[in-house]
This record gives sequence, C-alpha cells and structure tokens, in this order.
Amino acid sequence: MTDALLTFEDFSPGRRFDFARRTLTADEIVAFAREFDPQPMHLDEQAGRASILGGLAASGWHTSAVMMRMLYEAYIRRAASEGSPGVDLMEWKRAVLAGDTLSGHCSVLEARVSRSRPEIGIVRFRAEVTNQRGELVAVCEFANMMRRRTAEGAGHAHG
Amino acid sequence: MTDALLTFEDFSPGRRFDFARRTLTADEIVAFAREFDPQPMHLDEQAGRASILGGLAASGWHTSAVMMRMLYEAYIRRAASEGSPGVDLMEWKRAVLAGDTLSGHCSVLEARVSRSRPEIGIVRFRAEVTNQRGELVAVCEFANMMRRRTAEGAGHAHG
Repeated sequence: MTDALLTFEDFSPGRRFDFARRTLTADEIVAFAREFDPQPMHLDEQAGRASILGGLAASGWHTSAVMMRMLYEAYIRRAASEGSPGVDLMEWKRAVLAGDTLSGHCSVLEARVSRSRPEIGIVRFRAEVTNQRGELVAVCEFANMMRRRTAEGAGHAHG
Repeated sequence: MTDALLTFEDFSPGRRFDFARRTLTADEIVAFAREFDPQPMHLDEQAGRASILGGLAASGWHTSAVMMRMLYEAYIRRAASEGSPGVDLMEWKRAVLAGDTLSGHCSVLEARVSRSRPEIGIVRFRAEVTNQRGELVAVCEFANMMRRRTAEGAGHAHG
C-alpha cells in the first residue's frame, strides 16, 4: 500500500476530480468507428455534415471510452478500485466533432459499504464531459467498487 | 429508399434481432485497454488472474463497443437510424476473458412517435450479450431514433 492509494474512505459525497483535456482527431474518430460503429457519420466528413450531427462525429461509445480514460487518469489509477458492475445512465447530449477538445469532471454522489462483501465499498459517481465551449456533451452515472482502508491495511500489517 | 431499409414501423415490441458470434482475442483486449482503460487486469494475464475477474479481461467499455458493432450488423446497417440519445442501463454482469466468444440478441421493448419531431420515432431496445457457455455477460437498454416510413417516402415520391 502506498501513501497515495485512495480507498473507499477517501470518496466522500461531493468530492470532485477534474479531467485533463483531450482533443479528438478525425483519425481517432474514424479508427474507432471502423472497428465498432461504422455508420457513415462516424466515418466520413461529408456524411457527417449531411446528418443531424453536423460534421464528422465520434460514436457515442467512443466518447464513453474517452471518458473512461479520463476517469482512469483522474482517480482510478491511484485508487483501490475493484471495477464496476455497470452504468445507471449514459447520455450523449451533443455531437463530439473532429477537433473538439474534451474535458470535464466527476463527483461522488454517494458511498456505502457493501452488504455482501463488507471489505468493499460501493461509490456512485456522476461524470460530466464538456467541449471547448463548455457545452455538456456526455453525462454518466456509474458505480465503482473500492476496497476499504481496513481491509487494505490487513494484508500489509507491517507495510 | 431501398426495399430493405427498416423504418420505425418495422420495430414492433418483441421483435428480435440475433447477433453474429465474435471471439475476443488477447491482442484486441490489450489494444483497447492501452488506449482507453489501462488497468492491470485489462493489460496483463497475470494481473487478470490475480484480480476478481480471473484472467485477462476486457474493459467493460470494450464489451460495450463490441456490442455496438453487433447491433450495427444485426439491424442498424439496414435501418433508417438517426442515432441514440443515450443508454438507460448498461450492466457488466460477468468477466469477458481473452478467447471468449460473444453472441446474443436485442429485442424491441417499446416504440413511440416523437412529440417534438413527429417524422421520427423512438425505439427502446434491450440487448443481451452472452458468452460461449450461454452465460449473460452484458445487458444494455437504450433508445434509437428511427425515421418513419411516411417521412422516408416523402423525399422519394417517385423513387
């Protein structure tokens, strides 16, 4: 256990973690779409402009995957995370176009100890992803399982 | 408009679309994780085995992206789709390990005409992704906006 490792106890409701900025290039948008979501507006600038999205636009699932990376950099990389059982809500509120720069933050909504696994806590977060104009492009609410500090310490009594 | 294009009217509640099978390789799991979710259990077999996932395991968001491709092949590629405003529910119920073969299906839950855009209908789906043992690995409920046949025909009166 390092001093920096965040455990369940560190995620009190209201605590906020900011996302680093990341610009999505046309090449990244097309590469993701080719593999996972090859609809024309995600592959081609002209088709994107002709669609309601208004330009070459990232697949919603690409925006979600980029948000995952932002969450990883913001707190998961230094947290005693045990993964996520899933997502309560994932809204794609606005098109993410090639060249857009995303940022945003996540905040703790609630935190409780697991009934079935008392060495674990369940932390619910809300993440908001914004573009370079400050417009909200995606919202996600999800649960993250975290080890508790006592459980963490138990395995490293002399650590 | 081709004869094969599915419009809002084709998505009656209960209609089911089956997914083609797809095997996830270790290389694909690691490539996705490096870009979007570089947690040890998604990058390394040993770390995966030491985790609650029990082996080199796909990021939940990778499973979701693969499901998106399955949805595309099952119906979106031949539908008058106008995209999705988001996801009501995304559950990752079981680990997806390197070498697992995924399949499954989606079904229409409900379909209604949009109040704000009457040329569009909103179709809600439930997708279930299973592994080679028939175990449920992911569930997703989401909305898909679809053009209506009348609106579709209007632009092609002599087509």
